[in-house]
Amino acid sequence: MKRLGVMTSGGDAPGMNAAIRAVTRRALSLGIEVYGINYGYAGLVAGDIFKMERSDVGDIINRGGTMLYSARYPEFAQKEGQLKGIEQLNKFGIEALVVIGGDGSYHGALRLTEHGYNAVGLPGTIDNDIPYTDYTIGFDTAVNTVVESIDKIRDTAASHERTFVIEVMGRGAGDIALWAGVAGGADEIIVPEKEFNIEKIAQNIQDLRARGKKHTIIVLAEGVMHADEFMEQLEQYGDFDARGTVLGHVQRGGSPSAKDRVLASKMGAYAVDLLNEGHGGIAIGTENNKLTYHGMLDLFDSKHKPDLSLYDINKSLAK
Amino acid sequence: MKRLGVMTSGGDAPGMNAAIRAVTRRALSLGIEVYGINYGYAGLVAGDIFKMERSDVGDIINRGGTMLYSARYPEFAQKEGQLKGIEQLNKFGIEALVVIGGDGSYHGALRLTEHGYNAVGLPGTIDNDIPYTDYTIGFDTAVNTVVESIDKIRDTAASHERTFVIEVMGRGAGDIALWAGVAGGADEIIVPEKEFNIEKIAQNIQDLRARGKKHTIIVLAEGVMHADEFMEQLEQYGDFDARGTVLGHVQRGGSPSAKDRVLASKMGAYAVDLLNEGHGGIAIGTENNKLTYHGMLDLFDSKHKPDLSLYDINKSLAK
Amino acid sequence: MKRLGVMTSGGDAPGMNAAIRAVTRRALSLGIEVYGINYGYAGLVAGDIFKMERSDVGDIINRGGTMLYSARYPEFAQKEGQLKGIEQLNKFGIEALVVIGGDGSYHGALRLTEHGYNAVGLPGTIDNDIPYTDYTIGFDTAVNTVVESIDKIRDTAASHERTFVIEVMGRGAGDIALWAGVAGGADEIIVPEKEFNIEKIAQNIQDLRARGKKHTIIVLAEGVMHADEFMEQLEQYGDFDARGTVLGHVQRGGSPSAKDRVLASKMGAYAVDLLNEGHGGIAIGTENNKLTYHGMLDLFDSKHKPDLSLYDINKSLAK
Amino acid sequence: MKRLGVMTSGGDAPGMNAAIRAVTRRALSLGIEVYGINYGYAGLVAGDIFKMERSDVGDIINRGGTMLYSARYPEFAQKEGQLKGIEQLNKFGIEALVVIGGDGSYHGALRLTEHGYNAVGLPGTIDNDIPYTDYTIGFDTAVNTVVESIDKIRDTAASHERTFVIEVMGRGAGDIALWAGVAGGADEIIVPEKEFNIEKIAQNIQDLRARGKKHTIIVLAEGVMHADEFMEQLEQYGDFDARGTVLGHVQRGGSPSAKDRVLASKMGAYAVDLLNEGHGGIAIGTENNKLTYHGMLDLFDSKHKPDLSLYDINKSLAK
Repeated sequence: MKRLGVMTSGGDAPGMNAAIRAVTRRALSLGIEVYGINYGYAGLVAGDIFKMERSDVGDIINRGGTMLYSARYPEFAQKEGQLKGIEQLNKFGIEALVVIGGDGSYHGALRLTEHGYNAVGLPGTIDNDIPYTDYTIGFDTAVNTVVESIDKIRDTAASHERTFVIEVMGRGAGDIALWAGVAGGADEIIVPEKEFNIEKIAQNIQDLRARGKKHTIIVLAEGVMHADEFMEQLEQYGDFDARGTVLGHVQRGGSPSAKDRVLASKMGAYAVDLLNEGHGGIAIGTENNKLTYHGMLDLFDSKHKPDLSLYDINKSLAK
Repeated sequence: MKRLGVMTSGGDAPGMNAAIRAVTRRALSLGIEVYGINYGYAGLVAGDIFKMERSDVGDIINRGGTMLYSARYPEFAQKEGQLKGIEQLNKFGIEALVVIGGDGSYHGALRLTEHGYNAVGLPGTIDNDIPYTDYTIGFDTAVNTVVESIDKIRDTAASHERTFVIEVMGRGAGDIALWAGVAGGADEIIVPEKEFNIEKIAQNIQDLRARGKKHTIIVLAEGVMHADEFMEQLEQYGDFDARGTVLGHVQRGGSPSAKDRVLASKMGAYAVDLLNEGHGGIAIGTENNKLTYHGMLDLFDSKHKPDLSLYDINKSLAK
Repeated sequence: MKRLGVMTSGGDAPGMNAAIRAVTRRALSLGIEVYGINYGYAGLVAGDIFKMERSDVGDIINRGGTMLYSARYPEFAQKEGQLKGIEQLNKFGIEALVVIGGDGSYHGALRLTEHGYNAVGLPGTIDNDIPYTDYTIGFDTAVNTVVESIDKIRDTAASHERTFVIEVMGRGAGDIALWAGVAGGADEIIVPEKEFNIEKIAQNIQDLRARGKKHTIIVLAEGVMHADEFMEQLEQYGDFDARGTVLGHVQRGGSPSAKDRVLASKMGAYAVDLLNEGHGGIAIGTENNKLTYHGMLDLFDSKHKPDLSLYDINKSLAK
Repeated sequence: MKRLGVMTSGGDAPGMNAAIRAVTRRALSLGIEVYGINYGYAGLVAGDIFKMERSDVGDIINRGGTMLYSARYPEFAQKEGQLKGIEQLNKFGIEALVVIGGDGSYHGALRLTEHGYNAVGLPGTIDNDIPYTDYTIGFDTAVNTVVESIDKIRDTAASHERTFVIEVMGRGAGDIALWAGVAGGADEIIVPEKEFNIEKIAQNIQDLRARGKKHTIIVLAEGVMHADEFMEQLEQYGDFDARGTVLGHVQRGGSPSAKDRVLASKMGAYAVDLLNEGHGGIAIGTENNKLTYHGMLDLFDSKHKPDLSLYDINKSLAK
């Protein structure tokens, strides 16, 4: 292989830049040229593509966001869009591709592989909701961002009895809520994967207050509902003086954590090695603390499962 | 003076603990006993008071919140409440008081001074809205907390044209919004002290987008309106794909910044020195980079003014 | 089991408090009383032991250090010390023990188990050098602390050609250096587990400078040598204008990262469950992303191995 | 004025980028073209100069270091160097200059002014040692960096009695040591501006230990001596198990604090306004919380004085 391309697609995740750096440096160290594709599949189709040098990725390992920008481009699902993309790949002489993004971006990668352009996917998203990988690039950083906010809320010592509801990201997954909930010492964690009963939660808060615990912290995954709706429901069972925090896109940014940088570096180098060995249509993951890969079709048939043991552990530790 | 009391009142502010430490250590170094009063005026009336030793304030200089808790106790405005408080002061032999909080808590302090118990106020609030002081204890930390969030939002590089609205605290004051807006490089700052026109803001965003700037950051002081209402109004003028972030009580917590710890330490020591010289009914501030004090009555007649030059500077730097 | 004890021993590690909290809350949730032992084995022998309530561990999950203090007590290796310790265990009715610390503290735990007092070890140290566990409690936080420092050094843009040598902890292990080196994008990583040649390193720096890279960052594990000695050797091969940073005990403190809090919480709960099932003389670890345990004797016969793949990856990414 | 230049000179300071942004945006908003000069006076002489657009300074407000790099160029003290610099100014049509750096870089600025090219100086250095300004750009950030390290050292709870010596920057000034010492709750602060007696310090540590305070924290300004020499002297008076931390260049980097960004923004805009009014050979400062300026000659005749009240306050609060 003489020339590969790299792009980021879907939502931002801290560590994407570290992954781009690893792909670029690894490839260059093997004598493979690297072309960066801006704006994901949209940029591919538009030919927004440029040759990457070693120095282009110097000083990006600690930067949040992605130097290659990102976009959603549903048109790539159509053959027409794919053919336009291939036209550009040919024009730039790109033989293979590394796609860093959520598993939604893997579909286009599989299509390109089927057309003869091997593509490998790296799991880049804060939601940690990609199958066949215990962790995605960006997840650890997002959890730490949420935990820092919970820590600050914890400091609040007003004597009023208050309930704080922190709405966190995750789309349909409860991973961020579970990890941040345990690490933040939350009193309740509400996730899509677990049933919950608002009345019981209200009762629990009353019990905690009766025991002298004035502040209650509830971590709520956005996949369940939004904070204001949750607080509205809660207030039907008592006067909780509930306050909401919606961190929003703050969770998608920031300098990546050490873990995300190392994961991104390992995965990026691995992606290049796998492409160099002729693999395509595969998605890289970390399972049992080792790097692995699976055919993308297998991913599309699977559903990610969060570590629900954290839910039970927290119930026991929060009491 | 042989014995003084110290309390925190109103909302939390990072640096309150550093102030408590400074008051305690300074007093002890002058041979004055220190009694801590939990839960502000509510705790005073309830006699929730204890003798403070040097070691009680070891390791609190970097802690957010307040070790003496805080409360709002409107009953202290009535003479009956004040007399109950005085009963406790007598019971514990407390001759004078340091009150750390917003200027709302200064009223009780002035009443006690009139009754013969000298009280000095220290400006502890994140809102920076106390007259006769350029900075309040907790303001610098809160601004930095907001700025860290803006920095993370800035990383988001999706190609969609998005507008981020960050709602910040301040009650009726625009200080946090002004400082965080300038430091965060916001495109628009909306504060109670300045008129604004949503249509013009919408137009400005369109212009920035036309110039290639995809992301717009708007910092909105809660004293104007909430983020969701603002975004609703904005969307009447175009499709801005607006996203809101409401940091909420995150802004009240966290380890105090260096500036807040130094300010709290200086003010705490100064408060003790002033009480030792027989002053009472005064509020400490920092003006022109020097510690000053004013009669509380003067404060009640005045209104804090934020540094509006920041508003104009940002208009010029954000274009 | 009706009553267990918990202690921390050896050097500090961020996350120890989260582990203490998990042990305490888990035990209480199962109806088991918990006694905290201050100052490790020294405190055990001295009877510095107290009953722990649920509230004693509220608000410690985010605190660095350990609320139970720590000590080194070599005398516990002698039978006499052990018998004194047992005397205290009997006096307080403690049947079993959780010991959080480095594997050095496991020896005393095994001795107590042999005497009939089941003890379980939790790996608490920043050095990550305990066998049979991929990660120790405190390691992730320490790595992030080092990486934040490397990030700040990276900002330095003076035109002089400078070489920065950052000496990091780890005792005889290169784990912190490896992870921080990769995450920090270091140009060289020097660890005890890998041979190195100062002359080649000097040559590499000259090459990088010839290519336009003015700043070189070298991460040096203290187990190899100290920074000043390294710089002295380096300067024999050229004028590198080398600057040293020795973070020292900064690496042992700070609020634990999300990963360390979750690891500590899982391990702490697991320790209680294992003791409740009658296990003793075992050490808990995380292997292949799952919690495991091994007999302590097995640990004493083994040597931890760092992830040396990071060394090779960095050589390839740093070029 | 139609065209001005901007450069950074001397050591790095966080906030330099924010100042560059403010100068650039303010000038552009007034219809003045801006040229960036890389590598200070060295780059000026070499003609390493380029036209700056609005977008060149987007996304730099939160970046440490300086996008214009920096250098020391002693040759500029000679007329020959100055004439070469002027040649380049003429070549690029630059009429005036903003120089951001330590007061060492003001000399060249004054020379250029004398030659007819108005230059204004902005105080950019972490050392806070420039006369006629209470704060320099970068000082607040550096103090916070040191304080975060002290906070982490504070967590260390080993029972050994240890003394931690943290060597901080400042060249000949004690400002960083004073502010970080107070904010970090240090037991001793050693600065060039105050006499000290190692024997008395040793005695103080013994007294603190006798009172139960196991850990002592000493903040030492590098202008007095280095940490290892200090510890060597200290150990002559007892066994203090002293540990040193040398943060080094970590103090020069990092994302600027909110205060530094606001200061840099205000000063940068002010510099452009002053040049636009025809001023030259002046240095901007902040005194009594207001922006001011003074003739550079006045600065060269003066010596900065740190806030030594902090020294006395800390003696009283640390006891």
